Amino acid sequence: MTSKISPLAPAAFPEMPPIAGVRLATAAAGIRYPGRTDVLLALFDPGTTVAGVFTRSKCPSAAVDWCRMRLKGRGSGARALIVNSGNANAFTGKSGRAATRLTAEIVAEAAGCKPAEVFLASTGVIGEPLDATKFAAVADRLVGEATSGAWHEAASAITTTDTFPKGAAAMVRIDGEVITICGIAKGAGMIAPDMATMLSFIFTDAAIVPPVLKDLLQKGVADTFNAVTVDGDTSTSDTLLAFATGAAAARGVASIGRLADPRLPALRKGFDAVLANLAEQVARDGEGARKLVEIVVEGAVSKKSARRIALSIANSPLVKTAIGGEDANWGRVVMAVGKAGEPADRDRLSIWFGGIRVAHKGERDPAYDEAAVTAAMKKPEIALKVALGLGKGRDRVLTCDLTKDYVAINGDYRS
Amino acid sequence: MTSKISPLAPAAFPEMPPIAGVRLATAAAGIRYPGRTDVLLALFDPGTTVAGVFTRSKCPSAAVDWCRMRLKGRGSGARALIVNSGNANAFTGKSGRAATRLTAEIVAEAAGCKPAEVFLASTGVIGEPLDATKFAAVADRLVGEATSGAWHEAASAITTTDTFPKGAAAMVRIDGEVITICGIAKGAGMIAPDMATMLSFIFTDAAIVPPVLKDLLQKGVADTFNAVTVDGDTSTSDTLLAFATGAAAARGVASIGRLADPRLPALRKGFDAVLANLAEQVARDGEGARKLVEIVVEGAVSKKSARRIALSIANSPLVKTAIGGEDANWGRVVMAVGKAGEPADRDRLSIWFGGIRVAHKGERDPAYDEAAVTAAMKKPEIALKVALGLGKGRDRVLTCDLTKDYVAINGDYRS
Repeated sequence: MTSKISPLAPAAFPEMPPIAGVRLATAAAGIRYPGRTDVLLALFDPGTTVAGVFTRSKCPSAAVDWCRMRLKGRGSGARALIVNSGNANAFTGKSGRAATRLTAEIVAEAAGCKPAEVFLASTGVIGEPLDATKFAAVADRLVGEATSGAWHEAASAITTTDTFPKGAAAMVRIDGEVITICGIAKGAGMIAPDMATMLSFIFTDAAIVPPVLKDLLQKGVADTFNAVTVDGDTSTSDTLLAFATGAAAARGVASIGRLADPRLPALRKGFDAVLANLAEQVARDGEGARKLVEIVVEGAVSKKSARRIALSIANSPLVKTAIGGEDANWGRVVMAVGKAGEPADRDRLSIWFGGIRVAHKGERDPAYDEAAVTAAMKKPEIALKVALGLGKGRDRVLTCDLTKDYVAINGDYRS
Repeated sequence: MTSKISPLAPAAFPEMPPIAGVRLATAAAGIRYPGRTDVLLALFDPGTTVAGVFTRSKCPSAAVDWCRMRLKGRGSGARALIVNSGNANAFTGKSGRAATRLTAEIVAEAAGCKPAEVFLASTGVIGEPLDATKFAAVADRLVGEATSGAWHEAASAITTTDTFPKGAAAMVRIDGEVITICGIAKGAGMIAPDMATMLSFIFTDAAIVPPVLKDLLQKGVADTFNAVTVDGDTSTSDTLLAFATGAAAARGVASIGRLADPRLPALRKGFDAVLANLAEQVARDGEGARKLVEIVVEGAVSKKSARRIALSIANSPLVKTAIGGEDANWGRVVMAVGKAGEPADRDRLSIWFGGIRVAHKGERDPAYDEAAVTAAMKKPEIALKVALGLGKGRDRVLTCDLTKDYVAINGDYRS
């Protein structure tokens, strides 16, 4: 896509070290977009474990079905990941299922592994048949060219309406050795919890058994990808996969085989950092976004209740357009709190924009200074806090504003 | 407001007959908008009964609190209704409660009734104190000028971002006599079920006891106001009140005193017609709307499930922007079906735009002709139908498209 880079984008793609056991290659297969890469192949050394979490959509894409099926067996591990942008292979019926099988076979043959060891993800238009033979034209070259550390190229190949590629890395020390965790993500629209990304892939050289790897993902997404919303729409293709090559075992870092492993917290910290970083980048690249909005709800009856209220605020078109208009319209925040259906007492409610309390105990704050708040609203990052005064439940959600550009981008995405 | 009239507006305000026992007057009290009327007073003859349904917001406006309190007593009936636009008197704390009491006292004194017989509604900005003394300046004149049949003026005075005043009338025959039902409504944004209007008022000359009147409203809103959504946001002020003067009793139409009354179905038909007409006008005046969208979901496991799926489609920003862009993007419809969380089988799903089947049993319809669909999408009224193929549940929801004008209107509404 030719959109200008989001004003909220990081200054540059981050430095990301290679991960032993992971090789990457990209190609322009002409799936939809001309003049750009649209296929990513990741190859994994034998012994690589895999885990995934996926969209809760009742109409998932064929690729999501494929990955779920592979993970059910729990057997074979992962040798390859093939991702394409431009076509989501969702709502494509039998031909979609056939396309996933054919894609896996093509990649397996080129990579010298079994089709069941190939993981798939597709993103882009829904409802259009995906021509899997396009993978055949590039598979051998991808395998031949695959090299370690090509994160920037990998992150770029999987984008759709994203305005910048998204990557993040973390290093943690386990058994005296450095363990690396690298992640890439794409996702700019159709972003809402469960999960707040269309596609994200995490790689590490640690050795981790599948149930522990899955635990890292499941706990990790709760306050990262699942706490980000752009438009409240949930993709049919949301996929988060983690691959652990276990290459660190050669350096004496034994496999993490159970949840009680004392080394797990350190690893989890690194995972969570990568997931949080990527999730924030997704919010920063919300379609048409001009403001990154952090919504904190505290004093709710529970964390769950705080999350629901925060999401009600974050998904309210009226709140989002007001922020886009640099208007600290706390009345609409009250509306969004009220419609969440969670316990709330109008007369205990306090609201802050940019750290300035604009409403207190159900009324406009007596000390409220419109000029100070107006200045705060002009910043690219807006902190919005709501205190309910009922309990100790607290949660945080990231979103962005709703602008005319969102409408423009989505008013003619397909045509 | 100075917005252009919605292209979906009816050609003219309808002919609406006067109702015996109801007199109307409007005034420009300068509550917020300059150069236009912003207060409506309705006066009712003694013996008028009243019922209401209200927002389910946990943060309702002070006026909603007031009306709920009056209706709890069930005692006194209604002698007056005072409505203002420009200020919602919501999230105004103690001063808001004081303002409702003062307003009722001012009107009661001018109208010669008890404050408890005065019903209130306010619409407009949230969080700003409402200066009730502005009513004092106009109350006596309003009472003096009140006249029957001033529906157009009444409907105009209560508008905010509406681009046209909304009225509807129905006549039914009971005991050989004509009974009249007239309604007015306002509501253009912050429109979502429970209920899909900020304010609507229904008047009839039938004699109806309060529990039956309430039943007429509650059953009536289910498939009318509660089946309309503009932006998924629920107002703090949603109010639907019905007033039955009982003037028809003088013509021998005895009071309808119980739900089993054989005359009730005829009356209900008239009520439902007025509610449906007003609800559709609200969708036609959705902020920035260029397309009226009727969403029908059939083959769901239940009507309730069909409603949830229809609302998920109707509230999806991606579906709404696609329709605004005249793009029959059924993929986004699949996404919205999938995210509703209701039973759905991707491979049984069929989707129609403008009567043309674009997707069948989980795939693009083989007979799908893009040109024909594109032509259908250019029309101002778009019928979108989804068949799930699971059961007999069917429901219908009205919405509108999401355009840049919605963002423009709401990006600087308050400032």
